[in-house]
Amino acid sequence: MENFNFYSPTFFAFGKGREKDCGELVKRFGGSRVLVHFGGGSVVRSGLLDRVKNSLRESGIFFCELGGVMPNPRSGLVYEGIRLCREEKIDFILAVGGGSTIDSAKAIAAGAVYDGDFWDFYQGKYIEEALPVGTVLTIAAAGSEGSPDSVITNEDGMIKRGASGDAIRPRFSVLNPELTETLPAYQTACGITDIVAHLYERYLTNSKDVEVTDRLIESLLLTMKTEAPKVMENLQDYEARANIMWAGMVAHNNIVGVGRSQDWTSHQIEHELSAQYDCAHGAGLAVTMPAVFLYNMKHDVMRFAQIAVRVWGCQMDFAHPERTAKEGIEALRSFLISIGMPKNFEELGAREEDIEKLAYTCCYGKGNEGGAVGGFVPLQQQDVEAIYRMML
Amino acid sequence: MENFNFYSPTFFAFGKGREKDCGELVKRFGGSRVLVHFGGGSVVRSGLLDRVKNSLRESGIFFCELGGVMPNPRSGLVYEGIRLCREEKIDFILAVGGGSTIDSAKAIAAGAVYDGDFWDFYQGKYIEEALPVGTVLTIAAAGSEGSPDSVITNEDGMIKRGASGDAIRPRFSVLNPELTETLPAYQTACGITDIVAHLYERYLTNSKDVEVTDRLIESLLLTMKTEAPKVMENLQDYEARANIMWAGMVAHNNIVGVGRSQDWTSHQIEHELSAQYDCAHGAGLAVTMPAVFLYNMKHDVMRFAQIAVRVWGCQMDFAHPERTAKEGIEALRSFLISIGMPKNFEELGAREEDIEKLAYTCCYGKGNEGGAVGGFVPLQQQDVEAIYRMML
Repeated sequence: MENFNFYSPTFFAFGKGREKDCGELVKRFGGSRVLVHFGGGSVVRSGLLDRVKNSLRESGIFFCELGGVMPNPRSGLVYEGIRLCREEKIDFILAVGGGSTIDSAKAIAAGAVYDGDFWDFYQGKYIEEALPVGTVLTIAAAGSEGSPDSVITNEDGMIKRGASGDAIRPRFSVLNPELTETLPAYQTACGITDIVAHLYERYLTNSKDVEVTDRLIESLLLTMKTEAPKVMENLQDYEARANIMWAGMVAHNNIVGVGRSQDWTSHQIEHELSAQYDCAHGAGLAVTMPAVFLYNMKHDVMRFAQIAVRVWGCQMDFAHPERTAKEGIEALRSFLISIGMPKNFEELGAREEDIEKLAYTCCYGKGNEGGAVGGFVPLQQQDVEAIYRMML
Repeated sequence: MENFNFYSPTFFAFGKGREKDCGELVKRFGGSRVLVHFGGGSVVRSGLLDRVKNSLRESGIFFCELGGVMPNPRSGLVYEGIRLCREEKIDFILAVGGGSTIDSAKAIAAGAVYDGDFWDFYQGKYIEEALPVGTVLTIAAAGSEGSPDSVITNEDGMIKRGASGDAIRPRFSVLNPELTETLPAYQTACGITDIVAHLYERYLTNSKDVEVTDRLIESLLLTMKTEAPKVMENLQDYEARANIMWAGMVAHNNIVGVGRSQDWTSHQIEHELSAQYDCAHGAGLAVTMPAVFLYNMKHDVMRFAQIAVRVWGCQMDFAHPERTAKEGIEALRSFLISIGMPKNFEELGAREEDIEKLAYTCCYGKGNEGGAVGGFVPLQQQDVEAIYRMML
């Protein structure tokens, strides 16, 4: 196990009706002038936004609003949010929505107290300082409610990149599984896929002797395997939604990923797809993961065999571990298809003729001049191209 | 899953040599006048205390010292620490040691800013305010490095009781597995047993639909099952020590115990033993747990069967689940004996003739006037007596 720091100071208010505590939570964590940041109509239609605003009013907190966050959130709205924060002397940002809204709020929070262009943070500059952020989560997926990360798409070239810093870890996050019950099946499945991907990205490591984090990651994958079919069968299954929601947070606040190298190949390769075709991140990951894992399998067959046996219930083929390893990857693919995820480029709306460009941007795009992609096996442009071709 | 709050704002500095960061960490978390609190000679002999003091000196931090914490830490030293904190205008307490030292530091931290008798907190008063506490952990066991809990023995009657409050969660904890390599086999095994007990106390629940926390708890038990034999075979196995150390923290900061009722019967029944005979808490738990579980098994046979299959690798007897349940409890007992733990009253130094008194104190002792013991099955005095008799 490698040396590490772990710091996850977010206060989690979990369960039915907890959005009513927003006002008190903002106060507790020092906010008095709040920017309420959200996406489209669903938080308005469901009445959630009103409940959040009522809670702020009851606590006597000033707020202004900025809606319009899109999936794969854009830099344009971030600039608008930064301007609004400065004009209104905002001291706390409350994101009401999913990962896109939270990531947009984090970008605004960092940009509002920074003299330069906020995009610097998405080109590798660590975020040292930011306005405090709180969240009311509406989809179990990105894990942004408990993470120090944010992903934004720059409209100048449609480049999707991530930034990081303890300063943008939410001060509090309201996790009410009821709020996710109105999500359509497809978005629910995209969220599940994103959580599964966060676990695989951590599982694929070159660090040795990491039994505790291996086991923790496996336990969350086993949870997803058990709970996902329940929620796909009945979208209003509160208990399955609750299990998935907590698993999604634990999967990504990094308590299960410390002390080990991580991969993130699938995320990097996928980001080009959702940036280019505006497909859902989870859908992109469903197509990307099996291809990446099959391509990288030979690098550590026993690791893929271990997850196949421990998570997917495969029988170990001791004479041919590579068969077990592959069986595990196919079991993952079947699981993703069973919850309604796409399986290839065509279903994703991606085009074969773009592959060369996608691979180039992935390896050499803005903010990623290094060339090699991924922490498990360093991949070059021709590897990434080959992986995109496996998705056809 | 039940509604819950989860808040674990401790900064963990994990790995080789991390005690050198103490000074900087104290500064980062606002300390300038530190009470360094520790136990006996081992932290002095090993040079650890000197390294910690050097780190404080290098950061220009004033400190004074209070040693002498005993296993099952006593109220007398807590009063002394409180007096010292007030005299020296201490604003930060740094515990260097194991669970006893950390718990003693937490008691001092709460008592130093409280007008009444600190023992009030150990009779049920919630700790709202305390001096900040940091820790340098020397044994993986109690989980106090990441928990809001403290257990103290009142010398007036040798009553052992717990207190709780987010205010006593450590601001930072240094977790260096190297520091645990000099622990003798017996103490190492006691620590392992304590961690295993923290997991069982959370596993035994009456809450339904708690797959995610079930799976997380199981993953930590599987880790203990794999890593404990390695460290017992080679006490200097850094990697096994590291896996156990992180498992010990995760087991008890409650990220795996949220949203479910918990048990704590074994801890309550054991506390009378270590308070009365001054045996190691872990050793007492090793004798207590199998007896409690066999006594309570009929309350939820399938839960005991589940842990038997998922953790202990038992084959499910579908016609007789109670056989599987019992096999799992016997597997736990064998595991504990295999790492050198005692198996009965005699090996523990406890006496049959005290049983009636032990059971009475457990159910009606100072600070526990309610009578019933345990969250899984509420036990009365005659149940507790019967359980003590099963340990003969």
